[in-house]
Amino acid sequence: MSKAAELAKLLDTLHHENLFRNDFYWTWEKTDDEIASVFAVADALRDLRERNKSTRVFDSGLGISIFRDNSTRTRFSFASACNLLGLEVQDLDEKVSQIAHGETVRETANMVSFMADVIGIRDDMFIGEGHKYQKTFMDAVAEGHRDGILEQRPTLVNLQCDVDHPTQCMADMLHVIHHFGGVENLKGKKVAMTWAYSPSYGKPLSVPQGVIGLFTRFGMDVTLAHPEGYDVMPEVEQVARDNCAKYGSSFHKCASMEEAFADADIVYPKSWAPFAAMEERTKLYTAGDKAGIDALEKRLLAQNAQHKDWACTEEMMKKTRDGKALYLHCLPADISGVSCESGEVDASVFDRYLVPLYKQASYKPYIIAAMIFLAQIKDPAAALRLLDQGRGVRKAF
Amino acid sequence: MSKAAELAKLLDTLHHENLFRNDFYWTWEKTDDEIASVFAVADALRDLRERNKSTRVFDSGLGISIFRDNSTRTRFSFASACNLLGLEVQDLDEKVSQIAHGETVRETANMVSFMADVIGIRDDMFIGEGHKYQKTFMDAVAEGHRDGILEQRPTLVNLQCDVDHPTQCMADMLHVIHHFGGVENLKGKKVAMTWAYSPSYGKPLSVPQGVIGLFTRFGMDVTLAHPEGYDVMPEVEQVARDNCAKYGSSFHKCASMEEAFADADIVYPKSWAPFAAMEERTKLYTAGDKAGIDALEKRLLAQNAQHKDWACTEEMMKKTRDGKALYLHCLPADISGVSCESGEVDASVFDRYLVPLYKQASYKPYIIAAMIFLAQIKDPAAALRLLDQGRGVRKAF
Amino acid sequence: MSKAAELAKLLDTLHHENLFRNDFYWTWEKTDDEIASVFAVADALRDLRERNKSTRVFDSGLGISIFRDNSTRTRFSFASACNLLGLEVQDLDEKVSQIAHGETVRETANMVSFMADVIGIRDDMFIGEGHKYQKTFMDAVAEGHRDGILEQRPTLVNLQCDVDHPTQCMADMLHVIHHFGGVENLKGKKVAMTWAYSPSYGKPLSVPQGVIGLFTRFGMDVTLAHPEGYDVMPEVEQVARDNCAKYGSSFHKCASMEEAFADADIVYPKSWAPFAAMEERTKLYTAGDKAGIDALEKRLLAQNAQHKDWACTEEMMKKTRDGKALYLHCLPADISGVSCESGEVDASVFDRYLVPLYKQASYKPYIIAAMIFLAQIKDPAAALRLLDQGRGVRKAF
Repeated sequence: MSKAAELAKLLDTLHHENLFRNDFYWTWEKTDDEIASVFAVADALRDLRERNKSTRVFDSGLGISIFRDNSTRTRFSFASACNLLGLEVQDLDEKVSQIAHGETVRETANMVSFMADVIGIRDDMFIGEGHKYQKTFMDAVAEGHRDGILEQRPTLVNLQCDVDHPTQCMADMLHVIHHFGGVENLKGKKVAMTWAYSPSYGKPLSVPQGVIGLFTRFGMDVTLAHPEGYDVMPEVEQVARDNCAKYGSSFHKCASMEEAFADADIVYPKSWAPFAAMEERTKLYTAGDKAGIDALEKRLLAQNAQHKDWACTEEMMKKTRDGKALYLHCLPADISGVSCESGEVDASVFDRYLVPLYKQASYKPYIIAAMIFLAQIKDPAAALRLLDQGRGVRKAF
Repeated sequence: MSKAAELAKLLDTLHHENLFRNDFYWTWEKTDDEIASVFAVADALRDLRERNKSTRVFDSGLGISIFRDNSTRTRFSFASACNLLGLEVQDLDEKVSQIAHGETVRETANMVSFMADVIGIRDDMFIGEGHKYQKTFMDAVAEGHRDGILEQRPTLVNLQCDVDHPTQCMADMLHVIHHFGGVENLKGKKVAMTWAYSPSYGKPLSVPQGVIGLFTRFGMDVTLAHPEGYDVMPEVEQVARDNCAKYGSSFHKCASMEEAFADADIVYPKSWAPFAAMEERTKLYTAGDKAGIDALEKRLLAQNAQHKDWACTEEMMKKTRDGKALYLHCLPADISGVSCESGEVDASVFDRYLVPLYKQASYKPYIIAAMIFLAQIKDPAAALRLLDQGRGVRKAF
Repeated sequence: MSKAAELAKLLDTLHHENLFRNDFYWTWEKTDDEIASVFAVADALRDLRERNKSTRVFDSGLGISIFRDNSTRTRFSFASACNLLGLEVQDLDEKVSQIAHGETVRETANMVSFMADVIGIRDDMFIGEGHKYQKTFMDAVAEGHRDGILEQRPTLVNLQCDVDHPTQCMADMLHVIHHFGGVENLKGKKVAMTWAYSPSYGKPLSVPQGVIGLFTRFGMDVTLAHPEGYDVMPEVEQVARDNCAKYGSSFHKCASMEEAFADADIVYPKSWAPFAAMEERTKLYTAGDKAGIDALEKRLLAQNAQHKDWACTEEMMKKTRDGKALYLHCLPADISGVSCESGEVDASVFDRYLVPLYKQASYKPYIIAAMIFLAQIKDPAAALRLLDQGRGVRKAF
């Protein structure tokens, strides 16, 4: 039996029916079965593709992408996922279009969705705004479908918002699962999700938030470490705390990278901006207070610079389990002496982990494709079996 | 019998052979049978898609889009139509390419068309230029095909020029037909195509022109209302006048929104620029007279501002047939108190008509797809039947 | 037997196995059999398309395009070729992405290639940089594939580098072959690859280099003519010289357009920048020496302007074989009195050769498709036969 067929069998045992025709905002809104289903389909699609099986379930249809921030990696991941399933990506570039915030979102959402099956949105820049934009957009298309305007209700893949980054964190987790040889081996593993210094300013909080919200569901011992003042959203910390009892995990906070790294099995050192400062920034942007924005940026860069010792150095890595923790990063990383004078990670550490880092990233297109597959295909297990046994090939001859 | 099959039967009775391998510039160049054929195929394609039937008639091939003005709606409509039929959109973005006006259009037209089946052009900014550009482009590819350079002669879909906006106005009309339950119910219906105030400047004339040129073919009573000085192209008014005898329609002009709205069954209040001013603007642009352009803009905005009472208010709507005329707009509208202080329409009116407005827009991708279908498929009725009865599905499983 | 079937038979006799899973950088790295195979497949794909046969060998998959310089023609040629084979183009636009030179190329190369089958790169601006960038990129994906990051190793189509422009020059040559009725008729034909005046500055050297490197493989008498100081890369001149003995060709250099044109069967008058100046420019750009760059530009434009007599005039054309040499250009040309006051070619000469010029360009999409086909399909001859005899059509009905 092929791997895809085995995964289809696994899928039979999981409740994933609520993923169908539904949106994917945050991992913590999804049940364990649903999370497991996304992993299963991602692995199955990868297996099918590796065996040159066609996974084209759409004959036509559009995947609309909206990037309210520049993006290469996520853009290509979304495009790859859509292409794998037969959807064509149509990008809504706001800089060249007539879209605007507020009232007009409803209109644009309908206007671009007449033949859209999937909507992928990245809106991570402003705390309090990203999720709201996605929600407004998807409410509008749901309404449009209910009112008979849209023949189909497109489903959302959250490509990063101000709260969660589910495609990234689930790709990270699938990588971790395979690295440690299965979910069953994750129990008790120590994860250090730590802040790290970067000379750049205002990096999103969605990765640390997404990680603590998701990794605490696997019986792991998760530490969130950051200098004072770099707190993430309290609601998401609560999610992590609530997971502990349910999943036999633990969740700690500390203000020391060393402490977090000590005996860690997995380290995820990454810069982010303080939540409170990002809230302030959103207000300044809303008010159009250019001087205030500049002052805030200066202040934050100065604040960052006080914590240059938060770096994933060789010495720091030595503190981890046998000095060999799995190093994670969502890329691109700020590499000391390479992309900046001093940054998140030593060049020698980064280089040593290049292959696992790229593998980590390689799961993202499949995670996105799996989210689309489960939201769009009524009986995904049956569909996987038919693709597995079918004569369709990806590359002929 | 399915709706698509019934429409294929209707298509058998219509002369549409001249649409094959031909361009679609202006509706008034097309026969009644040809207009009816586009509507029939649009409805048939929609029916097939709603029933999850594949409408992919192209295995490969390109739809080239050229937008000489920003556009979200039309861009997505064209992309949706191409995707529905199996064509991939390749956008010729003049800002990043080496294209230029004049002599080089011929060269570019051939260079981008080696594998192009369809060309979609929007060029609506300059009176006297938009249609000319489209014609030059299509003459070049026709010549290229005759000379053996291009294996196929791509066909044009006019996505808006300075004279007509056929995909918009035919989508509007198909919406009207379905709203009133069939073409046979349109006889004698009163249409108010009226100017409305907008704080923005230089909006194209192609919508009012397209509407008076098309709606007067359906036995309707069409009034074109605008303040003094906001005339549209006299040639198109003549088209409307000529239609009256032939189709038992009537065409009036007046300088009062109230008069136009009185007992109207359909209202289309929308801003546009005066034809004479747009002619002047074209000359100023050609001469590169920046100061002249600025002065003209200022003058036109001041002129507009004298007519703020031309707004589709609740009071104005009350004057229409039972206070319930069908409100049309090509979107986006300038909504008073929402997108501007005072504009084309009251927010409460606009909101009440949101669902029909979005439905109106939903016809555009199908109108475009129908134009492509009839220009590219030799026996469209037979093709529709085969798609209707075939096993091809749009979304598998 | 169809033309495609005949070409498949020819392909059986050629060694093309090293093209499979390999990159296409420079024509002179390829064997004669390999060059002949690209021509055969290009002609076969064209025949299949003309007969409305499907040539779609990919069910899904991406062709990544990277244009480090604006491009309309090459962009559309690459998009057409990918579309013809079933690949979707995903453009890596560096202006909107996070890519940068150096260390990050390796990362980006992997991040965009998870589902990429083909990479097309144009990087022709800086001597010493274009080829290096392509090589770095492809080394990274080869490594990524070896390390198990990428499921497939995408293959390169060089869409122009600082050294060669293989898709252009092979399209030029296929045009020449068909124009003269076969490779066997090229022996002894005189080719004038000559510099011509242009008021623009810094045109790439890859076309003249590509032409002398490729055309000297066909027993032709190739003259490279340019004013003093406009030398091309010495390594490529050496390639041309080395070809002479092997192929019974000859390669001359001279400093007179008249001499080159005398009795020429083929003329290719085209502007380019001096190699030494381009080397200097690369250094200035690397140093960020804006003043130096401006000074160099001024100097080069002045230098160019001393050679306005290097123009393909009617008088010059009269010197060619019977006054009727085949005029080649990669387009766009600088046409005297049309696109500039005085340029590379007289308007009357250019106009007379318009049809052959456009035909010349029409080969490029097929050359690119053939390069992809041979790099991706294990048994291309068998594949062509199956496409030829198969029931798949490009346009249905």
